[in-house]
Amino acid sequence: MKNVKPLGKLIAIGGNEDKGTYPNPRTKKKFYLNFFELGILKRVVLESGQEDPRIEVITTASMIPDEVARIYISSFTMLNCNNVNVLDIRTREDALRPEYVERIRQADIVMMSGGNQSRLVDIFGGTEFLAALKHRYQTKPNFVIAGTSAGAMGMSKTMIKGGSVPDALMKGAVKMGTGLGLLDNVVIDSHFVKRGRFGRLIEAVALHPKLIGIGLGEDTGMLITEGNQLETIGSNMVIIMDGHHLEHSNAAAAQKGEAISIENMLLHVLVKGNLYDVNQRTFYPNLKLREQVAESTLLTAGQGANEPTPAAS
Amino acid sequence: MKNVKPLGKLIAIGGNEDKGTYPNPRTKKKFYLNFFELGILKRVVLESGQEDPRIEVITTASMIPDEVARIYISSFTMLNCNNVNVLDIRTREDALRPEYVERIRQADIVMMSGGNQSRLVDIFGGTEFLAALKHRYQTKPNFVIAGTSAGAMGMSKTMIKGGSVPDALMKGAVKMGTGLGLLDNVVIDSHFVKRGRFGRLIEAVALHPKLIGIGLGEDTGMLITEGNQLETIGSNMVIIMDGHHLEHSNAAAAQKGEAISIENMLLHVLVKGNLYDVNQRTFYPNLKLREQVAESTLLTAGQGANEPTPAAS
Repeated sequence: MKNVKPLGKLIAIGGNEDKGTYPNPRTKKKFYLNFFELGILKRVVLESGQEDPRIEVITTASMIPDEVARIYISSFTMLNCNNVNVLDIRTREDALRPEYVERIRQADIVMMSGGNQSRLVDIFGGTEFLAALKHRYQTKPNFVIAGTSAGAMGMSKTMIKGGSVPDALMKGAVKMGTGLGLLDNVVIDSHFVKRGRFGRLIEAVALHPKLIGIGLGEDTGMLITEGNQLETIGSNMVIIMDGHHLEHSNAAAAQKGEAISIENMLLHVLVKGNLYDVNQRTFYPNLKLREQVAESTLLTAGQGANEPTPAAS
Repeated sequence: MKNVKPLGKLIAIGGNEDKGTYPNPRTKKKFYLNFFELGILKRVVLESGQEDPRIEVITTASMIPDEVARIYISSFTMLNCNNVNVLDIRTREDALRPEYVERIRQADIVMMSGGNQSRLVDIFGGTEFLAALKHRYQTKPNFVIAGTSAGAMGMSKTMIKGGSVPDALMKGAVKMGTGLGLLDNVVIDSHFVKRGRFGRLIEAVALHPKLIGIGLGEDTGMLITEGNQLETIGSNMVIIMDGHHLEHSNAAAAQKGEAISIENMLLHVLVKGNLYDVNQRTFYPNLKLREQVAESTLLTAGQGANEPTPAAS
């Protein structure tokens, strides 16, 4: 199934400025997402192609699931969505309930909240629930799985479990693990810009140079179609780290706690409307340019058009 | 004079973990530098090639110059240096005193403290003092100018004046200005890793893509010989940003406050013993490999050996 292009879409969101989906006690509108993230949710609804999509909210990653659920229900309601429900899964036992599996099979949008990405894996790993989610993502056109913060980081097969910013790039500082496996070739970090997580993602990619590192800024998301076509949405930026050109690196050989050296990490900064093709490792400033390249590839390459070509430079 | 290789050396130090050279109230040894930075100072002394070098400490950047002066005198004394004096320059008038200019002409090592790099430029810019410092750096073999934090950032011709981490990569967030001009082709940031300043340096290089960005980690320094040969010293790391391969970027066209997009920034992470040639934009894991490359270049290139060659990949 891995090599078949999924018909569904992923939307990975970097988290908002107010530390994930936790309510900000200083604002009155504490049960709403902020303006920017609401803009991204609007896109989530739009991408489903449904007027009033069936939305299931998964708050499993969060330690304050009731509050987070209220935030998402309020926010989707503001967007005129009236078919929003919460899959209140807090334990592995909850995840095994057949009615929840059935609801995934009927959903148009699944929204995964922030929190701790390891909880997603601990609770959903190997369940029929996860299998049903993956199957719907693979087979149902315009099915959307959106995830904020931990909900975004958990999407990939290889996942960052944690790691403090001050220790980044000291061998062993970043903790890697297995994610939900919706995406094969990337590793995702969130709250990227304001929390200064560059070093953490550089280390993750140095350790797994075949993976493309995606650092999601706050108030920013990445729409992923066909499992590898990325489009930046939102107000901030997305950082792409490409380790395919790495030359010298001591990342594998270094002792725990030793500083890591790396030669030739390629970095891109994407803003709203910029695109990135994970398979071809190519940046496109906009959709029009990608379409032009795709057309010329078809014209010149004939039958080989579906094969990956080297990155632009 | 720019194209003549300086005979002196620069040692740019990222600052220590305790916020620059400010004493840490929690430790008893508050008037000493920490262990790691002391190791770097040892190297500073060693590079001068003198048994008991004449050391002049410049505390001009600092707002607590007396305390900073005591720290450096104590630290150099611990290293058996007994010829340490402070150039107590706090205003532009101080900088004009002829005896200070004369002392620069006699010094073996000049040590510039941390603080605010703009103060260095405001007070020394255009003075005979700065001209004497540059002249000695150009003409006196093994003359060492070392600088910590602001003292390192101020070394280059184009300098980062400031810019907050959370706003990095939003056009206008990084403030650029003119530095002391000891180095032409680089822009230097300090306290790089622990303060998460990646975005700030990426923005600086995107705005000035002909400059090599040098991000100095804490407890880490860069020995610079011939004005362009870099060697990493200390326990942490140095980040190099090379913008010479930039393709698409909106850095010039973006409005103030708009997120900046960048395609193809090349990034290296250097640890102790790793080298970087700024002119040739080449990373070398160690001195031996650089010498091998230099030898083979001489053998194969003949008369063209002194011309810059393209980066390794």
